[in-house]
Amino acid sequence: MSVERISAAKSFEGIQGVYRHASAATGTDMTFSVFVPAHEAGETLPVVWYLSGLTCTHSNVNEKGEFRAACAKHRLIFVAPDTSPRGDTVPDDPAGAYDFGLGAGFYLDATQDPWAANYRMWSYVTQELPELVFANFPADPSAQAIMGHSMGGHGALTIGLALAERFRSVSAFAPIVAPSQVPWGQKALGNYLGPDRAAWRKHDAVALIEDGARRAELLVDQGADDQFLQTELRPELLRAACADAGIDLTLTLRPGYDHSYYFVSTFMADHLAWHAARLR
Amino acid sequence: MSVERISAAKSFEGIQGVYRHASAATGTDMTFSVFVPAHEAGETLPVVWYLSGLTCTHSNVNEKGEFRAACAKHRLIFVAPDTSPRGDTVPDDPAGAYDFGLGAGFYLDATQDPWAANYRMWSYVTQELPELVFANFPADPSAQAIMGHSMGGHGALTIGLALAERFRSVSAFAPIVAPSQVPWGQKALGNYLGPDRAAWRKHDAVALIEDGARRAELLVDQGADDQFLQTELRPELLRAACADAGIDLTLTLRPGYDHSYYFVSTFMADHLAWHAARLR
Repeated sequence: MSVERISAAKSFEGIQGVYRHASAATGTDMTFSVFVPAHEAGETLPVVWYLSGLTCTHSNVNEKGEFRAACAKHRLIFVAPDTSPRGDTVPDDPAGAYDFGLGAGFYLDATQDPWAANYRMWSYVTQELPELVFANFPADPSAQAIMGHSMGGHGALTIGLALAERFRSVSAFAPIVAPSQVPWGQKALGNYLGPDRAAWRKHDAVALIEDGARRAELLVDQGADDQFLQTELRPELLRAACADAGIDLTLTLRPGYDHSYYFVSTFMADHLAWHAARLR
Repeated sequence: MSVERISAAKSFEGIQGVYRHASAATGTDMTFSVFVPAHEAGETLPVVWYLSGLTCTHSNVNEKGEFRAACAKHRLIFVAPDTSPRGDTVPDDPAGAYDFGLGAGFYLDATQDPWAANYRMWSYVTQELPELVFANFPADPSAQAIMGHSMGGHGALTIGLALAERFRSVSAFAPIVAPSQVPWGQKALGNYLGPDRAAWRKHDAVALIEDGARRAELLVDQGADDQFLQTELRPELLRAACADAGIDLTLTLRPGYDHSYYFVSTFMADHLAWHAARLR
């Protein structure tokens, strides 16, 4: 597996790089970014996987996420994949909507045509990209955390619940916690996975918990003035599921904050400190 | 003077806003951003003026500058103007070059046609915008600092030297320190101010110091791997001028860092802490 470095810049004494490779999972080129803090030769560091939200690439969190200071302080590698396959040959939402298709892979493997050929972000994020990262960067596979924002919060929760042993800690900013019950998720799961809602449950954090998935704890921050709070995010559903399941959920509503990176960046350092405490 | 709020978002417990107004100085609409940290009703706070570099608007530092955490901690208002007049009626570099015209106002009042009508960034940044900011935001005019990046570092140094009493502290990232002696500056000063180089000296930090402008101290950080270091920035000229003039210049070359916001953001918190110590 070869990986091409598109750019690299020193920042906070580490290196922020952007990379591209031919993905077998998606059948397309894929781009991702990695921040590697200063470290000793031969040393490996804990790795935080950051999954982005609808419409985003790695660039959004790289430019607006303000994660590098905390990653340098705690000596964490920070990996940000894209949110979908990309390219002229990849089918997109027929109406060009932002919430499905390009930029909206929902971190699952599609089973329905025409999406199944390329939209395999579950395989990409949980198998192919980790193999590539551990082969090419000084990341310690025994010290992994996962986090995300919005659709990426959905990804972090579902992957962190399904692969509970792999990740020492899981957190999210303004996640879609129950896609089966909200418009964004119903559109995406219906199109990618088909009408049988039983197949949706592996890609719905609340349903996963209802079906027995467990973690000791989860960390979620949510802006109280988020425009998507009532219709798409509905953190109260996660709160109820965690309460029933005995999962220690720290869910904090942040008054005045919206859905944007102005919110995410504000609490990024807190989340990374929380992960760092669990990764070492 | 009325000002229109284009956007506002809570971030780091303060408000990051973007504003637009009709500028008398430039004869155009102008856009700028202001971060106001959390504060008590009726309280005024120190203000840091941040001048951006070639091609930038307020957006670059807002997205990539990572200043809000430090401004919240030190309770500093942070104002970021645009770098030139904008609009279809504003003349631009005939060849569309990035280093002159739109996005490249060089913080001076042009005297040459066709630039003199709109390119009045000195008047805008030193007179009109401060009046607007002090009338509309809880900023304390007795506690001002100025800083900038690249062309904006040039602006911060020249304005901070010319109006030494107004600013308690002046710092820059990778500034153009002697525009009269480098290609970017020779092009800009020649076009905006005409061929008489005597007129350039008020807009050249090294020349200002040679001509008697003084401050007690200056803070400058410079990436050692900056692609513009040798041809456009030449910090050694500022070091020599400050040594001759008895100005306490703290100039640090940062190994491995380039000219980008990956560099600026790394040292932003250090600069803001340095300003904060002088503003209170």
